[in-house]
Amino acid sequence: MTSIPNHTHDPRAVSWVASANDGTTDFPIQNLPFGVFRQAGAARPPTVGVAIGDHILDVAACSRAALFEGAAADAAAACRSSRLNELMALGPAAWSALRHAIFDLLRADHADADRHSEVVGPLLVPQAQAELFVPADVGDYTDFYASVFHATNVGRMMRPDNPLLPNYKYVPIGYHGRSSSILVSGAPIRRPWGQTRPEGVEVPLFGPSKRLDYELEVGAYVGVGNDLGSPVTLDDSDAHLFGLCLLNDWSARDMQAWEYQPLGPFLAKSFATTVSPWVVTMEALAPFRVAPFTRPDGDPAPLPYLDSAAHKAAGGIDVQLEVAVSSQRMRDEGMAAVRLSHSNLSQMYWTFGQMAAHHASNGCNLRPGDLLGSGTVSGPETDARGCLLELTWRGAEPVTLPTGERRAFLEDGDEVTLRGWCERDGAARIGFGECRGVVLPGST
Amino acid sequence: MTSIPNHTHDPRAVSWVASANDGTTDFPIQNLPFGVFRQAGAARPPTVGVAIGDHILDVAACSRAALFEGAAADAAAACRSSRLNELMALGPAAWSALRHAIFDLLRADHADADRHSEVVGPLLVPQAQAELFVPADVGDYTDFYASVFHATNVGRMMRPDNPLLPNYKYVPIGYHGRSSSILVSGAPIRRPWGQTRPEGVEVPLFGPSKRLDYELEVGAYVGVGNDLGSPVTLDDSDAHLFGLCLLNDWSARDMQAWEYQPLGPFLAKSFATTVSPWVVTMEALAPFRVAPFTRPDGDPAPLPYLDSAAHKAAGGIDVQLEVAVSSQRMRDEGMAAVRLSHSNLSQMYWTFGQMAAHHASNGCNLRPGDLLGSGTVSGPETDARGCLLELTWRGAEPVTLPTGERRAFLEDGDEVTLRGWCERDGAARIGFGECRGVVLPGST
Repeated sequence: MTSIPNHTHDPRAVSWVASANDGTTDFPIQNLPFGVFRQAGAARPPTVGVAIGDHILDVAACSRAALFEGAAADAAAACRSSRLNELMALGPAAWSALRHAIFDLLRADHADADRHSEVVGPLLVPQAQAELFVPADVGDYTDFYASVFHATNVGRMMRPDNPLLPNYKYVPIGYHGRSSSILVSGAPIRRPWGQTRPEGVEVPLFGPSKRLDYELEVGAYVGVGNDLGSPVTLDDSDAHLFGLCLLNDWSARDMQAWEYQPLGPFLAKSFATTVSPWVVTMEALAPFRVAPFTRPDGDPAPLPYLDSAAHKAAGGIDVQLEVAVSSQRMRDEGMAAVRLSHSNLSQMYWTFGQMAAHHASNGCNLRPGDLLGSGTVSGPETDARGCLLELTWRGAEPVTLPTGERRAFLEDGDEVTLRGWCERDGAARIGFGECRGVVLPGST
Repeated sequence: MTSIPNHTHDPRAVSWVASANDGTTDFPIQNLPFGVFRQAGAARPPTVGVAIGDHILDVAACSRAALFEGAAADAAAACRSSRLNELMALGPAAWSALRHAIFDLLRADHADADRHSEVVGPLLVPQAQAELFVPADVGDYTDFYASVFHATNVGRMMRPDNPLLPNYKYVPIGYHGRSSSILVSGAPIRRPWGQTRPEGVEVPLFGPSKRLDYELEVGAYVGVGNDLGSPVTLDDSDAHLFGLCLLNDWSARDMQAWEYQPLGPFLAKSFATTVSPWVVTMEALAPFRVAPFTRPDGDPAPLPYLDSAAHKAAGGIDVQLEVAVSSQRMRDEGMAAVRLSHSNLSQMYWTFGQMAAHHASNGCNLRPGDLLGSGTVSGPETDARGCLLELTWRGAEPVTLPTGERRAFLEDGDEVTLRGWCERDGAARIGFGECRGVVLPGST
C-alpha cells in the first residue's frame, strides 16, 4: 500500500514555504518526515512536528487549530504527544491520510494556499530555534547484521579461512540492543571504559576503550505491532514499518573482541546509539523502492517465509549513505568534515521487510516505536566500508585526515556525521538530515 | 544499608493475618514482597499490593486511606500506579520506610493491632481472587550467564576440549534480552517456529522447535537508575537493586544452535520469558546474605571494579531454587509435578551486585524497572542442573517422568514450575511463590 507513489510524490510540487523548494534541502514537500521537537526556551513539553525546508510544522498545533478532517484529524490528534508512538500505532491508512492533508496544507498551488500560509505560517518553527528529541519511546531495539560485505569483512579478520558463517545466507542475523542509551543526533558520546585484553597480555585491563568506532546504519521504526504468538508475513511486514532514520551504532572494538563470545556484543555497544531526529516515512520512500540485492550465483534462495513475488519486485529501498568525520583540529582550522565512505541501503543482503518478518517469525511481538537497526551498511568497494574496523582493516591501514592526522579508530574530539538521501530521475530528492555525535574523553 | 537485618526480620513476629503464620506460606510478615494485581472481575486498573499469607494488601488503597505518615506515605503514594516503577525509583530509604510501616500495620503484637485489622481488613484481597501482572514496565531486560557450572556444561557440549572461554572468569557475560515478551507466571507458552538445521541437512528447516527448554533463573529488578555516563561502583550497586523474582528463560535449543553465531541468542529466546509476580525486596533478603561463591584455587580474583571487602563478606544471597515439571498425562492422572533439579543462587560465579556494576561500568544507564536475569542457576551436582539441555545432556540422557514418559526436551502440554525460598536458623523462612507456564503447540 505505502509502496505505490501517489500525487504527494509529484516532483513538480512546490510549497509556499520557500526553503522547501531550493533544490538542496533534505525536506522538500515530497518528504514530510516526522520528529519530536520543542522551540528552544519554550516551557511546554516536546511535541510532534514535520520538517519542511528549514522549518518544522507543529502538527499538534495544527490539530488544536482543527486544520484537518476525518482520518487525518484523528492521526493529527495522535501527534498531541511527546513521542511518535501513538501515531505509529495507527497504521498506514492513518499515516497516509495525515501525509496527504499536510501536503495539501503546504503546497503552493492549492486553491487555498494563501489562507493556508496565513493560518499555518505561525505554526512553523525555524529548525535553527528547535531542540530535537529521540522521536519515539523505543521499547525494544534490535540490531541486525544485514550487509554481507560487512559480515564478510569482519569475518575475514576473525576467521581468514572461513569468513562467512554457514547461517548467514539463511538467517537475517540480529541481536537485541540497549534501548536506554539511544540518543538523538548532537548528543556527545562519552568514550566508554571497559575490559580489554590486548594480545600477549594475560590479565585483562580495565580502562577507556582504545578502539572506538562508528557504524553507519539505517534504522526502521515499527509502526503497528503484532500480538505475541502472531507472526507477520513478509508481504505484510512493510505495513508494520512506519519509517526510516539514520543510526550510528557506536562500538568499542577492543571491548567487543574480548567480551562477545559466546552471547554476542554487550558493553561494547550499550554505552550509546545515536539516531537522526527525523523519521522518513515508508510512504515518502515509495518512489525509491527497488528490487532487493541480487544474490550471487550459487547462493541459496531465501526460505519461503522470507521470499515472495512482491518482495522480489520492490523489497529494497535505494538510500544513499555517507559518513564524514572531522577532528577537533580540523574544526579549529575551519576545515569541513571529510567523507570516509559512501554506500547504499539497497546493497544489503536482507531487507527491512525480511528483518521484520524474521523477527516476528517465532511469535515475538513487535510494538509501536520498536527500532530495528540494519547493521553496518557496507558495499563491495573499499570506500563503501561503513565503519573504521573495516576501513582501516582493524587499524592496520589508518586513514589520513586533511590535517595529516591519522586515524585507526576515533580519537577524543572527533565528530562523526552520517547523512542519507534518495534521488533518482523522475522523483524529487529527499534526505534524512544528519546523525551527528562528537567523542568526549572517558570519565575517570 | 538494606543488607543489615532489622526488627522487620524478627522470626518471632506474627501477623493478625492468620495465614501468614502457618509456617508453610511463602509470605510471612518478614517477607512482604511487592506485586501488581487486580481483584478478579474488577473494572479498575491493576494496582500495587504486598503479599501477606494467602492475601494481598492493597497498598494503593492504604495510601488513599492515609494509613501511613512521612516517608512511608510518600512511598505508598508511588504505589497508586499499575506498575512498580515509581516506587522502584524512590530508593532504599523510601522502600524501607514503607516496609516498616506495612510491617507495623500487619503485626499482631502492635498496640493498635485491633484497629489495624478493622481498618486494613477490608483492604486485603484473597490471592485466589486476584489476577497478577508483570510487576514493572521493563525498559531493558538483560540476561547474564553467571553460573560457571552451567557455562561449563554448555561449553563442554559445544567445545569438549575447551569448555570455558577465556573471558568467563573476568567478565560477567551477559546479553540484551527481549522486553516485549516478558510474561507473568501462568501465561501459556506457544512453542515457537523457527529455522533449525539438524545434522547432515544442507538447507535449514522452518517449523516448530523440537528442542524447547526451560531455564531456572533468578531476576533482579533495578530500583534507582544511574545517569548515562555515570558508572555504579560495586559497593553502591546493591542500593540500585529493588528486589528479586523467579525467571524462566524459555529457550528453543535447536533454533539457538543454528542462529547464535556470531551475535548471540535471538529468536531462540525472544518468544517468551516468564517472571514470578512477586518481587522479594533486597531488604527482605538481608538475613540471607552470604559470602559470594568461593572461586576455586587457581582462578583469578575479580578485577578491582568487581571486588570489594564488603562484597567479599556478603555479596551473595542464599536462595534455594527448584524446578518441577508435570506432563498433561500426569495432571490428567492426578499426579503432582516432579522435581527435576534443585540449586542455589549462592553458587553463582558472579553476584547480582557484580552484574549490575559491570553493566553500568561502561556508562550504560540502568533505569527503574530494568530486569537482570542471572542465567541458568546450576550447581556442581547432576541434580542441580537448571535446564534440560544440561540435565539430559542435549537430549542424550532423557529423564523419565512418573508415568514412564521420557523427556529429552519439553513436549506440548508440559507445565514447568519454578520455586524459590530462603531459610536458615534464626530467620523466618520466606519464599518467592511460583513461576509457572504450560507449553502450547506451535501455531501454524
